[in-house]
Amino acid sequence: MKTLLHRRRHSLISKLSERKIDALLVTRPANWYYLAGFSGESGALVVSQKGTSLITDGRFMVQGRAEMSGIRILQQKGSLFESVGQFLKNSRFRRVGFDPSQVMVGQLQSLRKAAGARVRWIPAVDRVEGLRMSKDAPELAQMRRAAILASEVVQQAIGLLKPGIRELDVGAEIEYQMRTKGASGPAFETIVAFGERAALPHARPTAKRLRKNELVVLDLGVILGHYCSDITRTVYVGRAPKRIRTWYQAVLEAQTAAIAAAKSGAACGDVDWAARQVLAAYHLDHLFVHSTGHGLGLEVHEDPRVARGQKWRLEPGNVITIEPGVYLAGIGGIRIEDDVAIHADRTEVLTRAPRDLIEI
Amino acid sequence: MKTLLHRRRHSLISKLSERKIDALLVTRPANWYYLAGFSGESGALVVSQKGTSLITDGRFMVQGRAEMSGIRILQQKGSLFESVGQFLKNSRFRRVGFDPSQVMVGQLQSLRKAAGARVRWIPAVDRVEGLRMSKDAPELAQMRRAAILASEVVQQAIGLLKPGIRELDVGAEIEYQMRTKGASGPAFETIVAFGERAALPHARPTAKRLRKNELVVLDLGVILGHYCSDITRTVYVGRAPKRIRTWYQAVLEAQTAAIAAAKSGAACGDVDWAARQVLAAYHLDHLFVHSTGHGLGLEVHEDPRVARGQKWRLEPGNVITIEPGVYLAGIGGIRIEDDVAIHADRTEVLTRAPRDLIEI
Repeated sequence: MKTLLHRRRHSLISKLSERKIDALLVTRPANWYYLAGFSGESGALVVSQKGTSLITDGRFMVQGRAEMSGIRILQQKGSLFESVGQFLKNSRFRRVGFDPSQVMVGQLQSLRKAAGARVRWIPAVDRVEGLRMSKDAPELAQMRRAAILASEVVQQAIGLLKPGIRELDVGAEIEYQMRTKGASGPAFETIVAFGERAALPHARPTAKRLRKNELVVLDLGVILGHYCSDITRTVYVGRAPKRIRTWYQAVLEAQTAAIAAAKSGAACGDVDWAARQVLAAYHLDHLFVHSTGHGLGLEVHEDPRVARGQKWRLEPGNVITIEPGVYLAGIGGIRIEDDVAIHADRTEVLTRAPRDLIEI
Repeated sequence: MKTLLHRRRHSLISKLSERKIDALLVTRPANWYYLAGFSGESGALVVSQKGTSLITDGRFMVQGRAEMSGIRILQQKGSLFESVGQFLKNSRFRRVGFDPSQVMVGQLQSLRKAAGARVRWIPAVDRVEGLRMSKDAPELAQMRRAAILASEVVQQAIGLLKPGIRELDVGAEIEYQMRTKGASGPAFETIVAFGERAALPHARPTAKRLRKNELVVLDLGVILGHYCSDITRTVYVGRAPKRIRTWYQAVLEAQTAAIAAAKSGAACGDVDWAARQVLAAYHLDHLFVHSTGHGLGLEVHEDPRVARGQKWRLEPGNVITIEPGVYLAGIGGIRIEDDVAIHADRTEVLTRAPRDLIEI
């Protein structure tokens, strides 16, 4: 593991030096973990050819020493960003890279003030995220486990559905099962939506009770060994009327088409288009109000985005969700989601749960 | 509720107009909820004398319409911040307030570009947070319920502790209980730390099994009706040795002293000092590696901070945690935490669980 992390830092540094960046400021927790193995909640990592340093507060010093190796740990004095600025100044770095999408306006003001006029601040967008997009073999192995765990949990949850149960009971059971199976927690707020509430793509569990003849959308993911999974299944309580069957069929075909399109070399926008085109043939594309998918890894939403017009071409090691859906105000929603890993010669579906319409 | 939210927006706007700010950009989810009742996960609220508008994406349009009243909802085209900038330009606002601690460097770049040169960007820090610090009666009622729920859950969890149980089993049970009792979820990642792991103030549950003669720190909170609670109890498995009893007694006295100091008119720094002074008398102050507490409300960490040198003077309506602790690498940790509400004439402890050392 240590060698792996060292290799990641090395590969980051060699890219930075092409742009004559002396040091990169890393402020995103998933990026610290990726580069240094630190899982604390507050701090900043400074990666440079002269070595890597973590500046953090008293709560995380013991944890930092336990989790990291070959990395200097400094305890902040005063605010984090003042301490980081001071550290950069003392280290005599001249060109410091930072990600404008991850540093607040006020934080940059503190950094500039503490680091002084000799430090130049160079925008360096998504440097670590770019590396994180290509999962290596140990990451893929972990993501397979996370996907299988989520698949088990969603199937167990479907088994609980019966008229009278509340959304929040199902949500509680889902998260309980995740944790007892070893997940450190949900990858995002579990979505359990019955009936009309299934028309909200991001509905949170409420006290609503399940009734006959309702759609149920279950969307959940786990964090297992720091990696995320994400799966959605839609169930009908009772015998689904014809139009629900047709809509379900449309979403299933759209998802199948998008998975087939998600090949190494394909543009993400084309994967999105593959799903949208199927829904258009059913005249349902206007009810598909979000994008087809997103990258998955240490975070539940990562690059690449699988959305309209996205030009990124899929590469081996990319892991994405494919999750088309249709949402009908007053009726409900239907979404089917799986996680797929892109390989040079094939696309591997990591999640493992039946995709046909389940009527209970 | 609608009148209440309208009053909050009105009070914000009247403060803004003192600084000749035409419109305030609100990008923090808890602030949207406070001002507009919107509980979606993405968007931006623009509050002005000409009215309030929410810009969000397709996922949250239905939800926004269901949750809000008297607020215009616009669906973003392209990126959120481009859309917001365009909206500000079209609305002919000249002086737009934004919070530099809540807007990323890159977001401000997008806003400036889309809004054009006629919009001036005025730093306006913690405007909504300032209002949120003073909880009104319905908020306090909700926070009492959240605190009592957390108190019940922590006591149930103590009942589960027996040698052999894993941290993650206790963590799963805690979150399950929260949800079945009506919480929408944990207010933060539940901390369950056995033995040496209790020396990490922010330990997450692992597969470690409980053994005799270990300390257990349980730190949990719930979100109930959007408001947070936060409670910590420390338990000893077996008969506590004398030095553990002394340390526990020191932390309990420190907490009691800090609660007594937390009165309307007292500076937060003095509340922190009250806890620290007791620990110093026991020669344990160097093991108290974090601050004494924090504000609590829609978010689990809010203003005011109860830390060294903080000058904010407590006012009626403030709700804070009081949570001194000592952390001994290789041995464990002891922390006791309760939530208190400040009233004009008294301090109300919202959490309700015994504070004496529990030996099981």
